[in-house]
Parts: sequence; structure tokens; C-alpha cells
Amino acid sequence: MITIAVDCMGGDHGPRVTLAACRSFLENHPEARLLLVGPAEPLSGFAHDRARVVAASEVVGMDDPIEMALRRKKDSSMRVAIEQVKGGEAQAAVSAGNTGALMAIARYVLKTVEGIDRPAIATQLPNASGGATTVLDLGANVDCTAEHLLQFAVMGSALVSVLRDEANPTVGLLNIGEEVIKGNEVIKKASELLRSAANSGDLNFYGNVEGNDIFKGTTDIVVCDGFVGNVALKTSEGLASMIGGFLKEEFSRNIFTKISAICALPVLLAFKRRVDHRRYNGAALLGLRGLVFKSHGSADELAFEQALNRAYDAARNQLLERVQARIVHAAPLLAGVAVAE
Amino acid sequence: MITIAVDCMGGDHGPRVTLAACRSFLENHPEARLLLVGPAEPLSGFAHDRARVVAASEVVGMDDPIEMALRRKKDSSMRVAIEQVKGGEAQAAVSAGNTGALMAIARYVLKTVEGIDRPAIATQLPNASGGATTVLDLGANVDCTAEHLLQFAVMGSALVSVLRDEANPTVGLLNIGEEVIKGNEVIKKASELLRSAANSGDLNFYGNVEGNDIFKGTTDIVVCDGFVGNVALKTSEGLASMIGGFLKEEFSRNIFTKISAICALPVLLAFKRRVDHRRYNGAALLGLRGLVFKSHGSADELAFEQALNRAYDAARNQLLERVQARIVHAAPLLAGVAVAE
Repeated sequence: MITIAVDCMGGDHGPRVTLAACRSFLENHPEARLLLVGPAEPLSGFAHDRARVVAASEVVGMDDPIEMALRRKKDSSMRVAIEQVKGGEAQAAVSAGNTGALMAIARYVLKTVEGIDRPAIATQLPNASGGATTVLDLGANVDCTAEHLLQFAVMGSALVSVLRDEANPTVGLLNIGEEVIKGNEVIKKASELLRSAANSGDLNFYGNVEGNDIFKGTTDIVVCDGFVGNVALKTSEGLASMIGGFLKEEFSRNIFTKISAICALPVLLAFKRRVDHRRYNGAALLGLRGLVFKSHGSADELAFEQALNRAYDAARNQLLERVQARIVHAAPLLAGVAVAE
Repeated sequence: MITIAVDCMGGDHGPRVTLAACRSFLENHPEARLLLVGPAEPLSGFAHDRARVVAASEVVGMDDPIEMALRRKKDSSMRVAIEQVKGGEAQAAVSAGNTGALMAIARYVLKTVEGIDRPAIATQLPNASGGATTVLDLGANVDCTAEHLLQFAVMGSALVSVLRDEANPTVGLLNIGEEVIKGNEVIKKASELLRSAANSGDLNFYGNVEGNDIFKGTTDIVVCDGFVGNVALKTSEGLASMIGGFLKEEFSRNIFTKISAICALPVLLAFKRRVDHRRYNGAALLGLRGLVFKSHGSADELAFEQALNRAYDAARNQLLERVQARIVHAAPLLAGVAVAE
């Protein structure tokens, strides 16, 4: 039986969305239990024999500074949810709250795995080859060193080998066009480190990839620093939203286009389902001594349930142990690098 | 009369595409002249009273290292085209060749404007508000300092004020989510510099923006370092291509979906036209003492003609002089920054 601790107060919509998603999740997972974390009042209406409320008197706001969330709100639903993982009451925690606060609290409460300096945020994006590309880091770390990028590659490989059942997933290092000046010094050094990791069997390093390779699906994993990853992710969100808007506008321009929309409705719905970003909700915080998943703050019921699903799959497949095993295996490499620095 | 020097040999398709685009461009611009640069043989078939072949015996390959293009191929079509601008025979040069080589040769032949350390590549991307967002740098510079980002902002403002007739276009500094650690040290410093530039009337600084703001159209200009800009651009290309592919697949799935595609054809064509990246082809190399435009290497006739159009508009609207005037106006600021460093 897997137990997930849910920060019911996080995200733009709070319990209205999180509780609805929890109910649906419990129906779809007869083997799962939930710990619903938050103030008693808003959660009191929820009754289920596999769910239990864990009281937390405070809530981390979406705009709360990290320091305040970490130092002042010690009884926040976010923190108490993570403490359930620390204490062993839950195998994973899920929150749609403030990313910076979640990362800081998770790091403070759970600590990082030996060999990992900084946790990273990893998510999966759909790709043209019909699968998904795992990208990390997505914003937990700016100003990464080559050694950090190597750590991300090791953790990303573990994640994909567990969640997608790929024994030896390929890793690409995000760089810029070959025809332009080839990347900065950090990337050049990271490329060397990844190559030696590949030689020692710790990674399946494909080589450098470019931005378009993320959605092309050239590699299973794309590694980059958090600044670049965050920009790539947000830019994609903006573009997808613009394209969706244009399509809608063109189909609702006049009576004729509206008729053709009705005619094309089944196709449009199939298309919409296929590019539905909600299906890709749920980013893993990797490198911690416990499983934490981050949902998009604006997640609706379907999206938040997807984040719960990911946390459940990760716990069920022993993601934590398997990430740690990979890191232990790569320890000589990671340590050698740290010494060489 | 405006004269444009065209590197007819650049790009994936060479003269087959460039010459066809040149012919169409001349038909659409009765006031324009073209200098067709390349080896005599492939260009000899082109006859037009407003076009003249300028001989160049060498061609820069798409994979040529920058050093080779710059030092060994002194009679390349790319270089000779740029030399036409230097010598005053043409008011702008256009090439679809290797970006790194183009930037290096343009910088070597034309030199940068006083006050600008590094040229930048700027392009326009469509946005949801129906306009276009100008983004720079797109890959000419990795490892930028805050001062470089300020220079890009000044140059981008000049470009937009000329090409889009916006007297005081807004500038956004590309950063990552507020909820995460707020950008790196360079971005923090650049933000301060841009704020003081706004105070002295050299810029209309909006503040920080995120990746999704590019396609939302939050600001007229988005400034970032070349690594981040290149990744954002390429990621967008990959996503747009994936979405287009999905839409096509869904409409060609079976006989019923194919019928609905026919029914929806006018809408789909209108949509396709709207998101057609070829309409946005033609990036400006800014900060040089001469106008150079870069076309996408894979440009077809329509796309390459669009790059010619941009170069023509820039030359006709005295982009060069106006960018220089902006830089002169901002000179005390740019110099103050350089000294303060």
C-alpha cells in the first residue's frame, strides 16, 4: 500500500481542485492511501476510508518569499506534507504551491542525497516521436557548473529508467546551434564530463542537442541549467497557448468556419487531447532523500490528479532507491569530478 | 533607389532558392536593385535590368569552421556581399549561410559601432496580441555581461522604433519565474542598468518577463543572452513543428477525418498562413557599421524573399543611422557603465 501526502492548500485554486483530484485518484487507485494536509476546516467535508486529514495551521502563499515560507511558517501544509515523507508516514508528497518555497523546504527537511549538491526539477514533455522527453533542470538552479549538469544527467537517467522502463535512456546536453559559437565554457566542460560518464557506463550520452530536439524526441533526457530550462518550458507554454488561440479564432471567425468546426470536432478534440499540457503535469524534485512532486500552480482537477499519479508511480516503482543506486554507482565519477575541480 | 547585395550561394538550397526569391522581390519592389553575389556560372542565367552579378569565386559551406570562412575564403560570396555594403555599393547584405561565419565576417569587414562591444542577432516572432515580439540576442553571444544586455536593449529599441514605427517600444528582460530563485547575478545587474537607462530616457523598460511573455506579446522587445535566446527560438521551432505534425496526423487518420479536413480546409489554410514561420524569416545583425540580414539556412523562396524584404525596409528606413543615433544618445550611459565596471 502506497501513501501519498497531499498539500491540499497549494496552487491557485486550493482545496476546491486538490480535493476533487484526490477523490478521483482514490477511485482510480484502490491500492493507494492519501494524507490530506491542511487546516481542519476546509478539509473536514472529505470522507474516504483510505484518506486521513493531517492538520497544518498555516499556508504558504504563491507570492511568499522563500525565507518566510521556510523560517516563519513552520506549520504550513507544504512543510507538514513533506514531513510525512521524512517521518515515513508517506512515500511521496505532492504540492501545487510556490516552487521556490517547495524546493527550499524539501531540501531543508529531507536533505540531499550524498553525491548531489543541488536537487533539480524534472518534467516530461510530449515529443513528435510519440513518447516524452524528460527535461531537467527547470528552474531550481541558476548558474550551474558542469559538475551540476553531470549530476542532473545521472538523476534524470535514473528517473527515466524507472518511470518509463528504459534500461539505458539517452541523455542530450542542451546547447546552441553548431553553426554558431558552440556553447559556453560550462557546456564545453559538461560535455567532457558526460562523455567520461558514458565511458564508465554511468550514462548513455548522445551528445549535444538543440532546443528543437526537445520536442523532436532526439534523446530521452535533455539536461540544461535551470535558467535555460525554465525559459524553454515557459516559452513553449506561451507558444502552445498562442497556437491554440489562433486555431480557435480561425474556427470561430464566421458562420462558415463555425460549421466546419462542428464538422471537424472529433478531430479537433483528438488533437486537443494530444497536446493537452495537463497530461504532462507533475514535475519530480530529484536528488532529495524523499520523493516530492510539484504540480503546476494553475492545475485543474485533471492536471492535479496527473501529478498524484506520477508521485504514486514513482513510489510504487521505488524511484528513490533506484535514483540512489544510480548515484552510488556513479559515486567514483561524481567524487572524482569534485576533487578534480 | 535601394541596392541589396545578396549572397546567392548561402543556405541549404543555394541559387535555386535565392535566385527565384530575387526575381520575385524585384517584381514586387520596382525601386530596388540587387547585386547577385556568387560564381559566374550558376548566376549567369539570371537577367534583369535592376540586377547585376558580382563575382565571388568561393562559397562558405554550412559546416565550415568560422576560422576557415574568415581567413581562408577571402573571396567567398558571403564576404563579397558584405564588402558591397562596406564599399557603399549596397545599403544592406542578405545571406542564408552559416550564422557563425556571417557574424564573424560581418564584424571583421564592417566593424562594430562605437559603444557596442558585440553585435547581436535580432528577429521578430509572432505574438498572441496580433503583433510581433523582437527577441535578441539569438546566438551571436554566449556568456553575456549585464552591460552587453543593456547594449542589446538599446539596439533592439532602435530596430523596433524604425521597423515597426513605435516611438518608444517597451523592453522586457528575460528572466525566470518569480516564484523560483529570481535569476542569476548577470540578470540582476542588467535589470538595474535597464532601470537607469529608462530613467535617463534611453529606453522604455517594462521590467522582467518570462518565456511565455515572448508569444504573449507582453513587451515589444525581449532581451536575453544568445544562449538562452537560441534555445528559446529552437525550442519554439520544435514545438510548432510537432503541433503541426499532430494536427496533420489527426486529420489524415481515416476517411472520416479526411472528409472533415476538406470541410475545414479554408480554416486550416488561414491558420497555417498565420503561424507560417516563413513570414518571420530575416534576422538583423545589429551593432555593425552596415546592415546585414540573416535568412534561415533552410529558407525556401517565400522565406528568403521575406528576408530580402526586411533588409529593404531597414535600408529604406535608415535603420543604420537611427540605430547609431540611439547609441550616441545613450553613449553617456553606455560609457558610464563601461567605466563603472
